[in-house]
Amino acid sequence: MFKIDNNHEISIDGISVRDLAKEFGTPVYVYSKKKLQENINNLKTAVSTHFPNHRIQYAVKANTNPHILKIVQESGLGADCSSPIEALISKKMEFPKDRSTYTGNFESISDFKVAVDSGYILNLDDYHRLDDVLSIGKPEVLSFRVNPGIGRGGFEGIVTGGNDAKFGIPYEQVREAYKAAIDKGFTRFGIHMMTGSNILEPFYFAEITQKLLYIIEEYLLDLDIKFEFINIGGGLGIPYTDQEQPLDVNQTFKLVSDVFHNKVKELNIGEPALMIEPGRYIAGNIGALISEVTHVKSSYRNYLGIDAGMSTLIRPALYKAYHEILINGRQTGGDTAYRICGPICENSDIHPVDRYYNNPKAGDLAVIKNAGGYSFVMSSNYNNRIRPAEVLIDESGARLIRKADEPSDVFKNVVDFSL
Amino acid sequence: MFKIDNNHEISIDGISVRDLAKEFGTPVYVYSKKKLQENINNLKTAVSTHFPNHRIQYAVKANTNPHILKIVQESGLGADCSSPIEALISKKMEFPKDRSTYTGNFESISDFKVAVDSGYILNLDDYHRLDDVLSIGKPEVLSFRVNPGIGRGGFEGIVTGGNDAKFGIPYEQVREAYKAAIDKGFTRFGIHMMTGSNILEPFYFAEITQKLLYIIEEYLLDLDIKFEFINIGGGLGIPYTDQEQPLDVNQTFKLVSDVFHNKVKELNIGEPALMIEPGRYIAGNIGALISEVTHVKSSYRNYLGIDAGMSTLIRPALYKAYHEILINGRQTGGDTAYRICGPICENSDIHPVDRYYNNPKAGDLAVIKNAGGYSFVMSSNYNNRIRPAEVLIDESGARLIRKADEPSDVFKNVVDFSL
Repeated sequence: MFKIDNNHEISIDGISVRDLAKEFGTPVYVYSKKKLQENINNLKTAVSTHFPNHRIQYAVKANTNPHILKIVQESGLGADCSSPIEALISKKMEFPKDRSTYTGNFESISDFKVAVDSGYILNLDDYHRLDDVLSIGKPEVLSFRVNPGIGRGGFEGIVTGGNDAKFGIPYEQVREAYKAAIDKGFTRFGIHMMTGSNILEPFYFAEITQKLLYIIEEYLLDLDIKFEFINIGGGLGIPYTDQEQPLDVNQTFKLVSDVFHNKVKELNIGEPALMIEPGRYIAGNIGALISEVTHVKSSYRNYLGIDAGMSTLIRPALYKAYHEILINGRQTGGDTAYRICGPICENSDIHPVDRYYNNPKAGDLAVIKNAGGYSFVMSSNYNNRIRPAEVLIDESGARLIRKADEPSDVFKNVVDFSL
Repeated sequence: MFKIDNNHEISIDGISVRDLAKEFGTPVYVYSKKKLQENINNLKTAVSTHFPNHRIQYAVKANTNPHILKIVQESGLGADCSSPIEALISKKMEFPKDRSTYTGNFESISDFKVAVDSGYILNLDDYHRLDDVLSIGKPEVLSFRVNPGIGRGGFEGIVTGGNDAKFGIPYEQVREAYKAAIDKGFTRFGIHMMTGSNILEPFYFAEITQKLLYIIEEYLLDLDIKFEFINIGGGLGIPYTDQEQPLDVNQTFKLVSDVFHNKVKELNIGEPALMIEPGRYIAGNIGALISEVTHVKSSYRNYLGIDAGMSTLIRPALYKAYHEILINGRQTGGDTAYRICGPICENSDIHPVDRYYNNPKAGDLAVIKNAGGYSFVMSSNYNNRIRPAEVLIDESGARLIRKADEPSDVFKNVVDFSL
């Protein structure tokens, strides 16, 4: 997707970032349809090689632009939804019922209403909510999110399993959960866990799969459930630094397969599909945030200011997340260290770790990589900055898929007022 | 502003939170006009007692709802702006030219354009930007933001002075800054620093004031500048916990006065006004976020789920910021510990520190205090959740001042699409 020529000029799918910045302004999120399809195909190949019976659901929260969703839907994936609006948009984009799931946590009754009405598989975070669900209607297919007691993630905040996570049913209570659902007349089941995020080690996925199957063996066998799917969650990572290796998805699903098929047969729990719900793996590396260098300042450090701040991309401020940043036309490396920061009036508005470039200048373009997932979707109007545009590069070139806010948008819902 | 009766029922300025939740839904931000005016009056009294010549500028980024801005403007305060839209809205709300400032950092040229066009005092973060400014126009009054080499804040991310801050001109370079401005024909000056945020110790403000005057004495005297103002920034804190004492603003400005007046006379630098730019002190404690308890879950901990998540209020996730949370109708204290969390699919979506309540239940209202500043303004649509409504309580009761997003608002600027 990225090409860098001998003059360090950067292009994305053949379109120079200079042209993108000129046409769409900065800051701007740019996504590659080609890369998106490549990620999906890689994953489908890896999963289907080892699991003829599988379902891949895209975690729509990662990047919910409908033009992105359309590509994902057309590739045959289902949707993993985590809020009412995610269920509404997924229905509108025609994600299939039998391969789409609503997974909430601490749902309001109105959340459940939309979830049940969607007809999607309902994945419950706590079996004590069954009556709340049944007060609205009865989903055809039910699964429970199990907290297997372990979890991992790139940052503390994205670890979603283990003793310190708010998610799921402690595995020691999982029998009560399925028993209660059977008693209330549910007949079609899956099981789910989601233990962490951005994991790059294939063996981890085998480990958690084995753990989940062990939990079924230990706690659920006498209920004689034939599971329609076993959902091992998402968490498939992408490298954010040069030092990291991409996750080997083929090895990952080979390893998962090694612990899955024989055990499933042995336990006689039906012919469950392997279900996964990747977000970052599919959308994370399809996008870049193109920003303009506004000023290079030398004070107690060298600061390289760009026009994208924590309102545009909050991951560095929120998680101290590292994003590789290229400066168009400038060599990476050298003796001079820079801290890259945005224009927000808060010292959180800074990228971690010194970066080294050869003589960057105001007017240069900063290309922040891996900004396809969990990036635009977390943007805000903090400091009364507008949220940026989104651009998609496909067969016919680069096109705007979301306009930047107008200043008036910031005050759109204010009563009796317009800017 | 808050009243809690014998049954632990909470009201805000005489209106019960039950009625507020019923009328406006949850989650909802509720602000008190009375408290806002009280804060402003307290500060005006304290400052004017010790500084007949003073200018108070409200940091509009703290809470930019125009209905809040109107009250602030009518009370005679100026505006402290940090982005083009903040300058535009402040002009629209008629904040006065001579008592309003534009303070950016790493400004784009288009940022400077709006700043210069506003006619507001320009407060420059780096004197190397003078030519950029002059390429647009010449502000009448100029100040420089000085980094005095020290800083403090409630959290690392809100420390805005010291060797590790991106802000301001190192004090060792301040002479070059003013010399350059004089050489370029500027004649009317102030000086500025902003070193930290949410500080509750009066002596700190005297300390930084003395430091700034020392910097003037050490580096600027021979330039013979008559300063029109000395801006010691904001940073006036509010207590977020019961254990903290409110900042004594009277003592604060008495202490600042003790180091200010004599030194200013001694240095013969004109008759500068004391300028300050509080945001949190004015707006922080005027608001509460009213949320509904969706579910109480016992897993490895007890979790009290509410319908306001990190998309609604990001301070707990971003800074691990503590907000006191009352559960309407329930006693605080007891043996059972709860972690309060929202519905966002991320483990960051949790309030720090165990809380103790007496038997809280789904349907109860959770009242999150001190959510008037740096709260709604940082909200997002993460997980495709809508941004909540804002309500103002004034003489005539509670009224909606910003509607909650509609689901369609989340996709408003998407090209060729509507939900």
